[in-house]
Amino acid sequence: MSKTDILIIGGGPAGMVAAGTSKQYYGTKSVTVIKSNKHSLVPCGIPYIFGTMLDGVEDNMIPCGARSQKMGIELIIDSVTTIDFDAKSVETIDNGTIEYEKLIIATGSIPKKPTNIDNYDAKGVYYVPKDAEYIKRVYDGVKDLETIAVIGTGFIGVELAGELAESGKKIHLVGSRLLKHAFDPEFSEDMESLMLGDGIEFYKDRRTVAINIDENGHANGIVLDSGAVVACDGVIMATGYEPNNTLAEESGLSMRQYNTIYVDEYMRTAKDDVFAIGDCAEKRHFITKRGVPIMLASTATAEARVAAANLYKINVVKSFSGTIDIFSTVIDDICFASAGITEEDAKKQNISSTSTVVVVDDKHPAKLPNSSKQTVKIVAMKSSGIVIGAQLIGSKDVGEMINILGVIIEKKMSVYDLLNLQVATHPLLTSAPTNYPIVQAAQNIASKQIGL
Amino acid sequence: MSKTDILIIGGGPAGMVAAGTSKQYYGTKSVTVIKSNKHSLVPCGIPYIFGTMLDGVEDNMIPCGARSQKMGIELIIDSVTTIDFDAKSVETIDNGTIEYEKLIIATGSIPKKPTNIDNYDAKGVYYVPKDAEYIKRVYDGVKDLETIAVIGTGFIGVELAGELAESGKKIHLVGSRLLKHAFDPEFSEDMESLMLGDGIEFYKDRRTVAINIDENGHANGIVLDSGAVVACDGVIMATGYEPNNTLAEESGLSMRQYNTIYVDEYMRTAKDDVFAIGDCAEKRHFITKRGVPIMLASTATAEARVAAANLYKINVVKSFSGTIDIFSTVIDDICFASAGITEEDAKKQNISSTSTVVVVDDKHPAKLPNSSKQTVKIVAMKSSGIVIGAQLIGSKDVGEMINILGVIIEKKMSVYDLLNLQVATHPLLTSAPTNYPIVQAAQNIASKQIGL
Repeated sequence: MSKTDILIIGGGPAGMVAAGTSKQYYGTKSVTVIKSNKHSLVPCGIPYIFGTMLDGVEDNMIPCGARSQKMGIELIIDSVTTIDFDAKSVETIDNGTIEYEKLIIATGSIPKKPTNIDNYDAKGVYYVPKDAEYIKRVYDGVKDLETIAVIGTGFIGVELAGELAESGKKIHLVGSRLLKHAFDPEFSEDMESLMLGDGIEFYKDRRTVAINIDENGHANGIVLDSGAVVACDGVIMATGYEPNNTLAEESGLSMRQYNTIYVDEYMRTAKDDVFAIGDCAEKRHFITKRGVPIMLASTATAEARVAAANLYKINVVKSFSGTIDIFSTVIDDICFASAGITEEDAKKQNISSTSTVVVVDDKHPAKLPNSSKQTVKIVAMKSSGIVIGAQLIGSKDVGEMINILGVIIEKKMSVYDLLNLQVATHPLLTSAPTNYPIVQAAQNIASKQIGL
Repeated sequence: MSKTDILIIGGGPAGMVAAGTSKQYYGTKSVTVIKSNKHSLVPCGIPYIFGTMLDGVEDNMIPCGARSQKMGIELIIDSVTTIDFDAKSVETIDNGTIEYEKLIIATGSIPKKPTNIDNYDAKGVYYVPKDAEYIKRVYDGVKDLETIAVIGTGFIGVELAGELAESGKKIHLVGSRLLKHAFDPEFSEDMESLMLGDGIEFYKDRRTVAINIDENGHANGIVLDSGAVVACDGVIMATGYEPNNTLAEESGLSMRQYNTIYVDEYMRTAKDDVFAIGDCAEKRHFITKRGVPIMLASTATAEARVAAANLYKINVVKSFSGTIDIFSTVIDDICFASAGITEEDAKKQNISSTSTVVVVDDKHPAKLPNSSKQTVKIVAMKSSGIVIGAQLIGSKDVGEMINILGVIIEKKMSVYDLLNLQVATHPLLTSAPTNYPIVQAAQNIASKQIGL
């Protein structure tokens, strides 16, 4: 029987940030992280292992061990089998019983297996868990294949397809329009035209109903709902994730929609001194406060910081409430970013909204070298003008520009607030001050209300 | 005698944005801009005319005429000699009397001439007004010179020195530490080491006391306060600007500190139906509300939008108050950006503040190509943790990242607000979600308050 003050189950981004933050706030407390694998991957870096930018799985590893040691965090490679909330302890396989003062559950998510697809688990069918050992096997498994079917057109599917094609493979990509949860249709169309002809064949709005196997049981083709059979040497399933909550559920924690652990604003579960953060914890939509199945490392780390700040008492009244989807990605060197709600989703959720699109040159004058176009779409509430969504296309700076809009959305700012926003502009770095697109977009929406 | 509804004096960024915004809000009103030159330059693009990126002055021109015509704005090339506030009219040189319903004064600024320097206006001594004809003469004048002295180490001086050196000239740069109003000393030192050895000799903390001239009256050297004489073929004076307010003052408008026109929160002067915006209008510091001599196109355009929105009635209650300095620039391919107050300035103004510096990799994993370091310094109030300043070093994305901090400062957000900020992160575009530097900096400051 051993004892630690702050015990964290899970060593992904949420768990490690909770550990580091706890140590920063409560230097005298002992902090222990139990994780199942020695090695940790940068989760969103996984697609880039398969392209030309990283040299294998090792290049995408996080040196957890060294960092933890430096911060005085104890790392245990083990698995928790049960939690006893009354005794305030956990049972492990190799390390017996460990007692805690505060427990943080950060068990993350695992790939959702589409059991309705025949042979979904055959040889040559790979998933994309955030597990270094498994990903190494995927890497070795697909390395020498010529033709790969990628099933799923969310971020992982799209990025993987792009990287695998970049490395010279022929890719068959199957799914709905690209990144449909984060972008409106016109943005998906832009992405689709960028991906075309780069060795990627896209079967849009098609479902995969079965995987064909050869006499050795190895995948050699996929069958679409159209009946078409597409030959391939291997299949990657990027068909989403589900919370890794067997432990929490079996230990008796209260569960919510999408099989997530119930948490309040401060990530506290229904049990005393027990917190849950990241993909395994409940998320609420920033407008409707309904449950939403968002799984993002950046959301997970924000939750980790909230939980750690408030472990022993409420130190920080939460100023943001609800989870906003906030993403960025790169397709064929063009960057796409999104925050909040799309126009399509606003309509689906019956939210009275209005939108505008502004296209500007991202340098000024536009004759400067490497000047390119920047597209900003803003979705706002029709009545109050509160900004509820934004989508961007441009060069690498939109990766940070979307975070301006993230703050605007989280602080519930309106287009009227943005009319006199002071921004830094520079010829080589941004659009002109005369048409800075976030302000121009706000003005387009406001001008429907302002006048004589 | 002619008449227009909305009359704008000045065709710089403030004037043109006021015109466009007025037309967008009040489509039925006639809008007239009186400007003294046919051609308009991108003001902050001027230094880049002198380097290798633009091909002469023409590449940095704004096609005002075509744009204005498209928007239904009347452009008059003329000068206003007096304003009669009672008759609500202006006198011009070529167009007689023009009556207005609403008047917006946007006369900008002109170079401040250091009359205490001998021969400050000799042949071969150039200033940097935002005047296309004059800049063309500077361009032609320095084109074939080998050695140029640049006096002044604000943005114009530093950027001009860099571009002229880039084009192969030998530069003598004289002034205080680089960009001292926008950056703390350690940032200036970084800039200085980047500029060294690129054909620039820097006379730090030296003043120019005289310009030497040859027998033809042409500048051929500068004399420093140390007594040293530095030979050169020409001199560029980047010694700051002053409001261009002779017209306003002589017409009887109420003037304030730094020779600026008095305006209220909505850019209204002391005269009915008369507004002033941009470099000629009063600016108040965002913390102290004292007058500050800030002259920035981005501030000017924000003021133009406020004025236009509220020309006929107060339509938009101003949600930001006070001017924050917000800048970005590029030195030797490294980007520097600043918003709000520096630590040095906070001390000078006796503001109780605290600060932290975070350095991270701007991609994750850091092994990705083109990954580089990103430095974030945050200055916050010691008591409330409200963020009052930020300084960044990094690659091009810091040009937009500083605008995240601009919103944070303008909305008076505290480091506690930022602890659970949700940000978009992506391997190829940003630092890791586990150590996003704005959040990490906030946590460093908050951790002094949060604990057991």
